[in-house]
Amino acid sequence: MSAAEIMIWEIMGTATLTLLGCGVVANVTLRRTLGHDGGWLLVNFGWGFAVFAGASVASPTGAHINPAVTFGLAVNGQLDWGQVPIYLLAQLIGGTLGAVLCWAAYKLQFDTHDDPGNTLGIFATAPTVPNKPWNLVTEVIGTFVLVLWIILTPGLESGAAGITDFGNSALGYAGVAFIVISIGNSLGGPTGYAINPARDLGPRIAYALLPIRGKGGADWGYSWVPILGPILGGVLAGGLASILPAT
Amino acid sequence: MSAAEIMIWEIMGTATLTLLGCGVVANVTLRRTLGHDGGWLLVNFGWGFAVFAGASVASPTGAHINPAVTFGLAVNGQLDWGQVPIYLLAQLIGGTLGAVLCWAAYKLQFDTHDDPGNTLGIFATAPTVPNKPWNLVTEVIGTFVLVLWIILTPGLESGAAGITDFGNSALGYAGVAFIVISIGNSLGGPTGYAINPARDLGPRIAYALLPIRGKGGADWGYSWVPILGPILGGVLAGGLASILPAT
Amino acid sequence: MSAAEIMIWEIMGTATLTLLGCGVVANVTLRRTLGHDGGWLLVNFGWGFAVFAGASVASPTGAHINPAVTFGLAVNGQLDWGQVPIYLLAQLIGGTLGAVLCWAAYKLQFDTHDDPGNTLGIFATAPTVPNKPWNLVTEVIGTFVLVLWIILTPGLESGAAGITDFGNSALGYAGVAFIVISIGNSLGGPTGYAINPARDLGPRIAYALLPIRGKGGADWGYSWVPILGPILGGVLAGGLASILPAT
Amino acid sequence: MSAAEIMIWEIMGTATLTLLGCGVVANVTLRRTLGHDGGWLLVNFGWGFAVFAGASVASPTGAHINPAVTFGLAVNGQLDWGQVPIYLLAQLIGGTLGAVLCWAAYKLQFDTHDDPGNTLGIFATAPTVPNKPWNLVTEVIGTFVLVLWIILTPGLESGAAGITDFGNSALGYAGVAFIVISIGNSLGGPTGYAINPARDLGPRIAYALLPIRGKGGADWGYSWVPILGPILGGVLAGGLASILPAT
Repeated sequence: MSAAEIMIWEIMGTATLTLLGCGVVANVTLRRTLGHDGGWLLVNFGWGFAVFAGASVASPTGAHINPAVTFGLAVNGQLDWGQVPIYLLAQLIGGTLGAVLCWAAYKLQFDTHDDPGNTLGIFATAPTVPNKPWNLVTEVIGTFVLVLWIILTPGLESGAAGITDFGNSALGYAGVAFIVISIGNSLGGPTGYAINPARDLGPRIAYALLPIRGKGGADWGYSWVPILGPILGGVLAGGLASILPAT
Repeated sequence: MSAAEIMIWEIMGTATLTLLGCGVVANVTLRRTLGHDGGWLLVNFGWGFAVFAGASVASPTGAHINPAVTFGLAVNGQLDWGQVPIYLLAQLIGGTLGAVLCWAAYKLQFDTHDDPGNTLGIFATAPTVPNKPWNLVTEVIGTFVLVLWIILTPGLESGAAGITDFGNSALGYAGVAFIVISIGNSLGGPTGYAINPARDLGPRIAYALLPIRGKGGADWGYSWVPILGPILGGVLAGGLASILPAT
Repeated sequence: MSAAEIMIWEIMGTATLTLLGCGVVANVTLRRTLGHDGGWLLVNFGWGFAVFAGASVASPTGAHINPAVTFGLAVNGQLDWGQVPIYLLAQLIGGTLGAVLCWAAYKLQFDTHDDPGNTLGIFATAPTVPNKPWNLVTEVIGTFVLVLWIILTPGLESGAAGITDFGNSALGYAGVAFIVISIGNSLGGPTGYAINPARDLGPRIAYALLPIRGKGGADWGYSWVPILGPILGGVLAGGLASILPAT
Repeated sequence: MSAAEIMIWEIMGTATLTLLGCGVVANVTLRRTLGHDGGWLLVNFGWGFAVFAGASVASPTGAHINPAVTFGLAVNGQLDWGQVPIYLLAQLIGGTLGAVLCWAAYKLQFDTHDDPGNTLGIFATAPTVPNKPWNLVTEVIGTFVLVLWIILTPGLESGAAGITDFGNSALGYAGVAFIVISIGNSLGGPTGYAINPARDLGPRIAYALLPIRGKGGADWGYSWVPILGPILGGVLAGGLASILPAT
């Protein structure tokens, strides 16, 4: 697959991911929506099915849509390291683009929201108890589960170099959606489960750039945690997978 | 497939869709029901599984049950334009018929509801912040995601002209249900996600005609938004799909 | 398949259905449980996955576990009428047995419940607005959707006489679970969606016989509605299916 | 498969199970989380998808991750009794390890929780109405349903001795996840559905050993109920399966 094709599909897949993922948080956060205060399970089905949608769209490239997956596959020898920067760049562009589309979909709700200071949470994650080393641990553990599942699950690896393949089926990516819902339900409580640097950094950039009414700061001081934590988790999962016995 | 057969299956599928879809809103809206105030996730599982049921029933025709899908497939060259009017007519008839059946199922609840002015929302969508151009943008974005997913997802296209095929399985249409739940969770907050002109116009006609106790107006002034928006979204998705590289 | 084998599998499947189905209502109704006041979506996932479990167990017989399905298949020519009484008897026995097991699982909660008069709802359905003819209409519509889906969905019919076959897969019956969740979400509001005479009559008999602390009457005056309604719905679906064009 | 390989996969699978399972209870119990007070359906999707994740990881060994499954398969002749102790030891180690990881993920929330006496419930189950014989009955019934479903469901048994096989698919274990969600929804109300001795004893040991701020006792007096009940349920299911007619 050419670099241009990787760019096209990963941008589209990651944009779909953050459009729908940031969308569900907009829906529960902003006041004049039908999903206001819809609860944590709604948020998790929102992000889980956002991964389902985005991974389906990006299936030609193996549906990484997440730098942690890209690093994990590379460490495990399933992806050529030379392709890694192409994936990362596409994911960051897509993550930013999807967040801009989310803002467009909720433009009227942003304009009429009565607590504009809390809108960063629609775009980027934040810890409920700030403590960067432990917040990092939480992100490492969550991402480790995600990437290990992707690498180990039977049927997910195709013969193509570094390209995972969930099968030629409309339901192909439902399994990874269930894992993301699981991580949200179970490990998302402390830090909002970025578990994907592009999902956090891309929308944070969008937040900083967009003319959102009454917006606050983008909390760049925390922004490295949801980048480094997921990458560490993905690398650890890829490393463990590479030493496990063959099955 | 003959025009008569398209009519039969699309009417039945779209009627199943609006019977179950309007049904869940009746359940959460009307007072003397078991699902009253059941929340936004209940509404979204309601509409998502309504699509699952309706698409299963309409599988012989490719399970469009939505003019936006019909237009998207036609633009992408998967459906003969000459069949488009047959699909649209059947979808409108089915959408109206399903809403009538929903009213019959909830007849006693309509008769005992204490706030009859709010019953239009059971049938047709409405914006939380009225502003037709931006409401249109929201509907375009949501439908674009739906139709793009349908066209791109591996395994959904059969050899038959313009007929999508989710596979010969009881779970065949679960993927599209998850996408609809996702759009509801994530992009349904501002306008109630029509994302299907037949789902909105059909029940709106039913509302205008049915002897619903204490009913208000059908808000025809807004009614073109959930028609034009989804059609534009479907056309854009079909157009984008037609220029994407083959995979 | 011998009559004895039909009895074994249908009893076990229907008992699994009502054990889990009545169980979720016990969980939300009784006070000293972890699921008290858990909401309508919890109830619907409870009944839907109860059908998933019961149908899986009863798969050797085609997983009817519901007289409405048995009648619908017989009317559509997929089941020999001579086998119908065997299915019905097994379903009634199983439905009663499962409710007894549910009571055993929740024995301590029944004994400590503070409003014992409301425990009939754990076992049998009741209308929110009593009006037998319209309650019947609601049950007919809901069951019609269920049985039509079962008959029409591709892949559900095996070559064996009257035996549906959801495929040799752990997920085989997930589709019918989603339909039951859908009917609960969307059409269950007025009457609690019996949509299965054995699911209502069996547990109602169990309620009448069990030594439940402080129990009230079994409301036999309403009990024919959730028997006749589902049977009519199943017969109508089977009849419609028999005249639809082949696909 | 060698004993060492069984150990590796069962430890990893059971650790994944209790990491995610205890995680969802931490999320709803502890105050400074995003899922606080998220409700019973969230807890059940949490445990159900935790089983999905853990079983996927442990698929090389047949994905027992539960002594009740191991005993049930052995009684039904699907597993060599000589392998049983290896499975049990691995499951206990894994169950303890996962709970330790859960504590690490929620360390800051444990440290800032305002009611530290109630944290045992994150790790181990407890009855809502204490009465050990009836609590035992509830655990037996719930586990019986789980293990019977696993043994009976078509496609779950491979040719390998005592190794269940859910198929080479990313969605392979979704069926068992739905059953666990079902048991939680429907039978989890009285005792919190251990239905797995390793899921209860392992985390209880972790609770006793970990430096959790302000922790109370580990309630060892109740601890045998969620061990004996699930084993009895599994043995009964395996025994029943062994006398059922072949299908």
